[in-house]
Amino acid sequence: MPQLRKDPVLGRWVIIATERQARPSDFKTEPGFQSGTGEADLKRERQPQEGACPFCEGNESMTPPEIIAFRDKGGEPNGPGWRVRVVPNKFPALRIEGDLEKKGLGIYDRMNGIGAHEVIIETPEHVRSLTELTEERTREVIYAYRDRLADLRGDPRMVCGMVFKNVGAAAGASLDHTHSQIIVTPIVPRTIKQEMEGCRQFYDYRGRCLFCDMVEQEAADGARIVAESPHFLAFLPFAPRFPFETWMVPRRHSSHFEDIQDYEVPEMARMLRLVIDKMERLLGRPAYNYMIHTSPLPMERIEHYHWHVEIIPRLTRVAGFEWGTGFYINPLAPEEAAGFLREA
Amino acid sequence: MPQLRKDPVLGRWVIIATERQARPSDFKTEPGFQSGTGEADLKRERQPQEGACPFCEGNESMTPPEIIAFRDKGGEPNGPGWRVRVVPNKFPALRIEGDLEKKGLGIYDRMNGIGAHEVIIETPEHVRSLTELTEERTREVIYAYRDRLADLRGDPRMVCGMVFKNVGAAAGASLDHTHSQIIVTPIVPRTIKQEMEGCRQFYDYRGRCLFCDMVEQEAADGARIVAESPHFLAFLPFAPRFPFETWMVPRRHSSHFEDIQDYEVPEMARMLRLVIDKMERLLGRPAYNYMIHTSPLPMERIEHYHWHVEIIPRLTRVAGFEWGTGFYINPLAPEEAAGFLREA
Repeated sequence: MPQLRKDPVLGRWVIIATERQARPSDFKTEPGFQSGTGEADLKRERQPQEGACPFCEGNESMTPPEIIAFRDKGGEPNGPGWRVRVVPNKFPALRIEGDLEKKGLGIYDRMNGIGAHEVIIETPEHVRSLTELTEERTREVIYAYRDRLADLRGDPRMVCGMVFKNVGAAAGASLDHTHSQIIVTPIVPRTIKQEMEGCRQFYDYRGRCLFCDMVEQEAADGARIVAESPHFLAFLPFAPRFPFETWMVPRRHSSHFEDIQDYEVPEMARMLRLVIDKMERLLGRPAYNYMIHTSPLPMERIEHYHWHVEIIPRLTRVAGFEWGTGFYINPLAPEEAAGFLREA
Repeated sequence: MPQLRKDPVLGRWVIIATERQARPSDFKTEPGFQSGTGEADLKRERQPQEGACPFCEGNESMTPPEIIAFRDKGGEPNGPGWRVRVVPNKFPALRIEGDLEKKGLGIYDRMNGIGAHEVIIETPEHVRSLTELTEERTREVIYAYRDRLADLRGDPRMVCGMVFKNVGAAAGASLDHTHSQIIVTPIVPRTIKQEMEGCRQFYDYRGRCLFCDMVEQEAADGARIVAESPHFLAFLPFAPRFPFETWMVPRRHSSHFEDIQDYEVPEMARMLRLVIDKMERLLGRPAYNYMIHTSPLPMERIEHYHWHVEIIPRLTRVAGFEWGTGFYINPLAPEEAAGFLREA
């Protein structure tokens, strides 16, 4: 059973997922400094051959039984014939069964690692990027995100859902076949809590949603815009941590992603593909992550928080200064990066 | 001039260091996903030949003029004959000259990137690890850290000093020659602020320093200890973000690293070398960072915060879930990792 442990200094929770890896020799995957270039120590990814990819059509038995799938008429569950398939993660960071059993250990606090960890397999073909798929497929992936969060909301232990995507080894992906993940935690994560507090402070002082104001200022200014559509704005934030970090914000105020409207989904799919396609063309298919930031599932709809997507190509290394301070050093001004992306 | 910009959502400051890099093609240094293994895209580090290393003895003119150096008798400044040398960073994240000029831009806030950015060159020889040097040399490096922070404290613009070390490309290092850095920021960084708040809450509730309590509980428990000495304890924290993350805490309560006593320095040097030597032997000389967490320079000595060192080998990749939530998934329990390190 994974454990959730709280660092008493920062109040930061950590998942100790002991089922996943164990021996020191499992960790020699990062470039070290013995060779001078760092390449010698880079172990090849434990990437299965294409035929043995657990996410490919025909290999459905290699994953746990599916939770939902979008199928053409006639397909059987856990057999071929699907377009998008959602399965539990085979090596889950959190487990769905059990109780939290919160406990103190002297000055420390822990609880059982209860939650959900699901994988959204975005296509039956062994394809590496969502940009190689039709826009229709991305639309279905967004529907799958929405449906899963809406369903998990029914379980009172499920507090905060994070939808995310890791692409490329440098972004933490261990499988190539294009997929996303959802992890639902039993407590509100530190980053979401702090974002909501920041937005709350703005709302208390100025009486408006910070993200609504941000969309307005960015649209009027224009210097950091990557792409615009009637219902979404994609722009580089004023203070991005990373070069080419891009946020995609719905223009309509909404605190919960799972409340996305049917008319917004096709446009979100189009914009997401467009931004990622621009990054792939400009930066040579970099590793990247995207994350959907949304309010806690059981929380009522609120005026001061606004769901959005953050997309970060993984181009720079996080170093000691960043780990120690929480400051980031970004070597590229967002106004310049936005210009490159607009033209890509 | 670098800029400091504040993200209005999280209150997180970012340094936009536009002098350092600029074109999209500069960023293709991380493994992408085109090749399937990620190796093809890994550009070789722009590592100078040994003879042209700016940190080697004889190449003193390749760095900005030195701030301090520990020299044998007779050596001239900026010439050979030094043992440890401190110079301004040639590509500083923050600049020492100028005023902050704090400004609002609509909902956003910015100021000039004023601060200090120095490099501590730990030896005149082209050596990659502090474990290849004598303990005496590490001792001098610690004295250099202390002297620089104590000196910078005199400037009212210098608020918070972060001493850190990046080793290996995966840890953000761009030069092999063993060195550390100091960045002093004009505001209290988010992580230090939040650590101090967490410690303050503990102090207000329990009337004691959290780190003093932690040292006591860890010493009594023993399961997470890596090494002990009369004045320091090295242990894995209860909730480490990363496998083998180790903290080194002085047993004597002290809020400011620069108040380290002469009798503590040799022991800190011995412990630091010991822990890093263990990591190098166990993990095959991994990339790593260490950071000295200490109170803001102008702040009076306080009862509730306690300086310490955090050492993190860079073995796992940070993925979307971590970026989105601030949670970390650690695949190795600290009790197991401590056992491996004790025996290494």
